Amino acid sequence: MHPVAVDAMGGDRAPEVVVEGAIAAAKEGYAVLLVGDESRIGAIPRGLPITVRHTPDQVGMDEPPAQTVRRRPESSVRVALRAVKDGEASAALSCGNTGALVAAALLELGRVPGLSRPAVCAALPRADGGRLVLLDLGATVDTRPQQLAEFAVMGHVFARFVLGVGQPRVGLLSNGGESGKGNESVKAADAVLEGLPIDYVGPMEPTTAFRGGCDVLVCDGFVGNVLLKTAEATAELVAGLLKREVLREPGSRVAAWMLAPAMRRLRGLLDYKAAGGGQLLGVNGVVVVGHGRSDARAVTAAIRHAHHCAGESLGRRVAEGVAWAFPDNLRPPVSGEPSADAPADGARQPRPG
Amino acid sequence: MHPVAVDAMGGDRAPEVVVEGAIAAAKEGYAVLLVGDESRIGAIPRGLPITVRHTPDQVGMDEPPAQTVRRRPESSVRVALRAVKDGEASAALSCGNTGALVAAALLELGRVPGLSRPAVCAALPRADGGRLVLLDLGATVDTRPQQLAEFAVMGHVFARFVLGVGQPRVGLLSNGGESGKGNESVKAADAVLEGLPIDYVGPMEPTTAFRGGCDVLVCDGFVGNVLLKTAEATAELVAGLLKREVLREPGSRVAAWMLAPAMRRLRGLLDYKAAGGGQLLGVNGVVVVGHGRSDARAVTAAIRHAHHCAGESLGRRVAEGVAWAFPDNLRPPVSGEPSADAPADGARQPRPG
Repeated sequence: MHPVAVDAMGGDRAPEVVVEGAIAAAKEGYAVLLVGDESRIGAIPRGLPITVRHTPDQVGMDEPPAQTVRRRPESSVRVALRAVKDGEASAALSCGNTGALVAAALLELGRVPGLSRPAVCAALPRADGGRLVLLDLGATVDTRPQQLAEFAVMGHVFARFVLGVGQPRVGLLSNGGESGKGNESVKAADAVLEGLPIDYVGPMEPTTAFRGGCDVLVCDGFVGNVLLKTAEATAELVAGLLKREVLREPGSRVAAWMLAPAMRRLRGLLDYKAAGGGQLLGVNGVVVVGHGRSDARAVTAAIRHAHHCAGESLGRRVAEGVAWAFPDNLRPPVSGEPSADAPADGARQPRPG
Repeated sequence: MHPVAVDAMGGDRAPEVVVEGAIAAAKEGYAVLLVGDESRIGAIPRGLPITVRHTPDQVGMDEPPAQTVRRRPESSVRVALRAVKDGEASAALSCGNTGALVAAALLELGRVPGLSRPAVCAALPRADGGRLVLLDLGATVDTRPQQLAEFAVMGHVFARFVLGVGQPRVGLLSNGGESGKGNESVKAADAVLEGLPIDYVGPMEPTTAFRGGCDVLVCDGFVGNVLLKTAEATAELVAGLLKREVLREPGSRVAAWMLAPAMRRLRGLLDYKAAGGGQLLGVNGVVVVGHGRSDARAVTAAIRHAHHCAGESLGRRVAEGVAWAFPDNLRPPVSGEPSADAPADGARQPRPG
């Protein structure tokens, strides 16, 4: 199998932890194409399936993504994505600026035909032991109803082919399941999602979804990002408060020591870094979005995950799902009709007529 | 002090748990005016500071709130609020339909002068031991920037007078603190909040806020409701997973038994039912929003909380805060100028000109 192209320069602790994680993945047999500044990547142990591709340029975490990426074709993130486009790599991974990764993927790989915007998804743990695919997590912050419908179809494909859920139930994130709830965006999207050829279970609040009410939860990238970060913050808060309460009594401290293995397993279940990061859906290729704060272990997990997604031909599956759900989007636009194939970067095109 | 008027018929397990909670509060010395169907409220033990006011009508949990409330002046929630308006009660509490409570409060008490919309807030635990005042939690789902600015001022007043934070730092909920982040609504509101005479610390993601980055976090009611329910769902998920992991090993089970007191304290810290519920801000009076799933203990806590808020003259403080932050909103609208004092229920009035 082709290697996964890894942006060695992306992430808060790049390239050190990225290289370390790539070496660990290679030791497990996963092939890696490491893209970045050779002098900073350093020496790679012999005999491992790692190739280094030197490029001196990189996109910083705090640069305005879209413009910066456009001006820097030799940045590590773009070179990594180009390896996917050229068929040298089966997938790309970056733990750098998500906005830059999305912009670079749109430039290098392009959007899936018939789709207006890409989305980032992740699979979160559910109380019933299942997984909840949440999207969008930040690629598109202000969405139209049609875009939420596209996210629904892409999430459905991800749940089916990557997680192996036979018939994924898709919900629309809302502040309540009752009719009359939801903001203007949810109310408009609800009607569009009703028309999709998937198992749409309606508007749903987070509580119900996390208990197992659906397999895929759709929302705009602003709300999805807030939801993800709230879940992270709450898990951190609960763990911190538990520790504080436990340390208040000597008896509890002994108990906590005895509980350490269970706590470690819990941390593993909740740690979405260890789960391989997010997934950029809707571009022509497999792109994994690593967490900016990834450590080496998270990078290794993300490389494993990227290989798995590539093995399931995720890029092609998404394109097929979109073609099947939105056949009309693939027709060449008729003059006077708004194009579903709007520009990828959110810029508005003048409408004919 | 005047009693707290309690809607005996509001909540999933009303009137039973509401009556039980009211009796427990009365035993602690808190005066209660119980409003509802006398025959269902039943007998109250003698000698307690509880008065029952009979009204046969009530608003169900699943009725469309605004219209229903308007047509039913003798519903328990409206009679309870009227007692506040008439000066018989110092505050009102309902664990019923939040939409109905908001609509009824607008009808009976009216909006604070100079304010366009009310908001529901709650104080959540923070990792640093402080409290995070979050608003709006669902009173207003589609907001204008000016409304978010009003929420900021009301949250500031709540943090200062109810929680005793000397100089509350106010943040605007966003998907990142960097410039360029945020959706259209956040970007527009950011500029308006910059102009307020309060300590505005800018857009902030939930992770930073829960670590102690601000004392008040402002958002629209849709996102706030999703955030609150996500925090609830995650806390439930973490507790459930921890239990499952602990039960996997006999040694852990012993440890868990030893940890029980610490776990109970943790649950107390996270249980926002025990914290007294939410607060409806922006109406002329003190109104506490109980959780629909409240048990008797939650009702007692909410009555205590209502007495505390009334003691701090929260209604008057909010009005003073709004008058001080938005002096221009109190001027009578000039012809041709859009009125800040728009209709409370979100209906659009024709504009002059």
